[in-house]
Amino acid sequence: MSAAVAGVAATAFSSESQTSELALAIEAIRGALADAGREPADVDGIVRYTYDSSSAQHLIRELGIPRLRYFSEIPFGGSATCAVVAHAAAAIESGLASCVICFRALNGRSGLRLGRAERHLGRDTLVSEGEMAPGGGVLAAPFGFLAPSHAMAMWAHRYQHLHGLTDEQLRAALGAVAVTQRAYAQRNPRAVTRGRTLSYDEYREGRVICTPLRVFDLCRETDGGVALIVTRADDAPEGVRILAARQHIEPWQEQVPVYSEEISCLTSPGAVAELLDAASCTAADVDVLGVYDGTTVNVMLALEDFGFCGRGEAPDLLAAGEHGPGGRIPTNTSGGLLSEGHVHGLNLVMEAVQQLRGRSPNQVDGARTALVTSRSSSMVLAA
Amino acid sequence: MSAAVAGVAATAFSSESQTSELALAIEAIRGALADAGREPADVDGIVRYTYDSSSAQHLIRELGIPRLRYFSEIPFGGSATCAVVAHAAAAIESGLASCVICFRALNGRSGLRLGRAERHLGRDTLVSEGEMAPGGGVLAAPFGFLAPSHAMAMWAHRYQHLHGLTDEQLRAALGAVAVTQRAYAQRNPRAVTRGRTLSYDEYREGRVICTPLRVFDLCRETDGGVALIVTRADDAPEGVRILAARQHIEPWQEQVPVYSEEISCLTSPGAVAELLDAASCTAADVDVLGVYDGTTVNVMLALEDFGFCGRGEAPDLLAAGEHGPGGRIPTNTSGGLLSEGHVHGLNLVMEAVQQLRGRSPNQVDGARTALVTSRSSSMVLAA
Repeated sequence: MSAAVAGVAATAFSSESQTSELALAIEAIRGALADAGREPADVDGIVRYTYDSSSAQHLIRELGIPRLRYFSEIPFGGSATCAVVAHAAAAIESGLASCVICFRALNGRSGLRLGRAERHLGRDTLVSEGEMAPGGGVLAAPFGFLAPSHAMAMWAHRYQHLHGLTDEQLRAALGAVAVTQRAYAQRNPRAVTRGRTLSYDEYREGRVICTPLRVFDLCRETDGGVALIVTRADDAPEGVRILAARQHIEPWQEQVPVYSEEISCLTSPGAVAELLDAASCTAADVDVLGVYDGTTVNVMLALEDFGFCGRGEAPDLLAAGEHGPGGRIPTNTSGGLLSEGHVHGLNLVMEAVQQLRGRSPNQVDGARTALVTSRSSSMVLAA
Repeated sequence: MSAAVAGVAATAFSSESQTSELALAIEAIRGALADAGREPADVDGIVRYTYDSSSAQHLIRELGIPRLRYFSEIPFGGSATCAVVAHAAAAIESGLASCVICFRALNGRSGLRLGRAERHLGRDTLVSEGEMAPGGGVLAAPFGFLAPSHAMAMWAHRYQHLHGLTDEQLRAALGAVAVTQRAYAQRNPRAVTRGRTLSYDEYREGRVICTPLRVFDLCRETDGGVALIVTRADDAPEGVRILAARQHIEPWQEQVPVYSEEISCLTSPGAVAELLDAASCTAADVDVLGVYDGTTVNVMLALEDFGFCGRGEAPDLLAAGEHGPGGRIPTNTSGGLLSEGHVHGLNLVMEAVQQLRGRSPNQVDGARTALVTSRSSSMVLAA
């Protein structure tokens, strides 16, 4: 692709922003424009998460964008993480736009809490037969199967069964994700958990949320905003190139994991192959990884899905610390959604960009290629 | 652009489909695939109206689509009319997809009625400060300003004031739209008003809905589905080329007309110029026109916006019957939303495609170029 992420920015992340979601969006967008050396008058495209409360009209009015030529919405939550960039790049490449904002801003803690069941019991759940509700919707709700963590717990159990792990082995694998990401966060000024270290003993004593997941297996609920600016690569002197950005969903891969026929991987081998082929790279070329870590389970599965190790080998990779500083595939180096904060995945994209610019608080030496993935969207960026 | 509409199809249009919106969507999509000579296994993209109740997952499960690589949602209602095609074309051109479904299916009469105020008083209205509600949202609702027709009545009055029309002159202009489109519909087997002719006397005796608009100034509420297939032009032997497809929204041009600073045009001169420039054509090159005719007022305004006549000249153009059979710019030749049925504008795109293929029930001889416009999206197609 000939498009690039030309600039990125975020607001402070907190548990109580004390401002509106629109104000967070505007602050992040103004920052990203400044980072890209652009003005609101340059903007002609906006890609938003359908979930966001700030509309394209809100933004053009607040920012003074003279005319918008492209606006797109991406359904689902974390699955939009890389999809917003894919849509922006498509708009650039097809000539529909030249300077596109991607953003996500939410009061995910002080407003409508992101992980709580009540978020998933609204009108959407009732009219759409459940697919808007990561926990399973109307058919599963009577059984208390409501929030995303409830679904991912089942994936963890499935993994344990498939690979014959003891409870302690599963806990060690997931704990390695949580503890390492918390350590990354200690060097990240933006991280909401900065100053609160996490040992493995503390991890395993965390209260149970949904067996086998404990409190430190789950991402933060966070107030904050992140924005990116996507332009043509030749218009982005400090940008990072988008080698490939893809959405992918297959019939077995419902957004509602409870309906899924297959819960041993998050992203299908076919979708992975297509992404890497489009980017002309393999897992061996990737220097830094971002995984939508709604839970620690997602990280364990993504490492295998994208070929950083074989099936059933992620626990060994994690035990060896290969996802940590100096490891073979440093992962979620900002602390991720578990420990930096949860801005619906878009902060993972920001971290990938900053790694490729050499500006991460946990800089991977010589990082040239970054892969970011959420369940239904993935991308490869290059310095 | 190098993309084309490769196939189109619709269900029957009625006031009571006696089936689900999903079933309507599937029927229309299967028809469009057959028309394009494609199979569900070829499909890798879906662009939907955010409003539609059928999700991408519903479709891939029902149709057996093996993997979806691109899915997009377009906000608003009629403003998505050409935007779905623009997004599909962008996906094709950027290599994100090769065969994209665009669709809209609704029980707009027997289900949630499209024109009624209650549709616009849901949760969206409350959380988004009104822009999802064409009638004005929470700020206007206490004054009874609720449905799209309430907004368009103000645009009619503004037009009357700007151009010094008497009540009778305004009525004659709007009536010419309604009567001519009803006549077109009499030759269209799909039209819900077929068999019910409309004279100008009947038109002007219609009951008042919102002054100056009477019942025949408003589109039908309709049950039905329409689908298009977009592919590369060289993969579409019976397709029509997409010369340009654009979205456009400016700060003055709120989706809520009550907030608009400017209500003398629907689409800005800059957006019109950009579209025609991208398509390398002028109004004089256009053989057939489709206008999102939620009301007759939209047609009158669009004729001027796109340069088919000067400002204030649409009443004369309409009085001369230039929008009718054999006229200078045959408009909404299927009967349009007023008389064929309202499938949120996508049936206007289908009619444009059929005109360019020589298959319209009101065929314009030698039609080579078609323009379709809704308020915030427009496109030019070519045989």
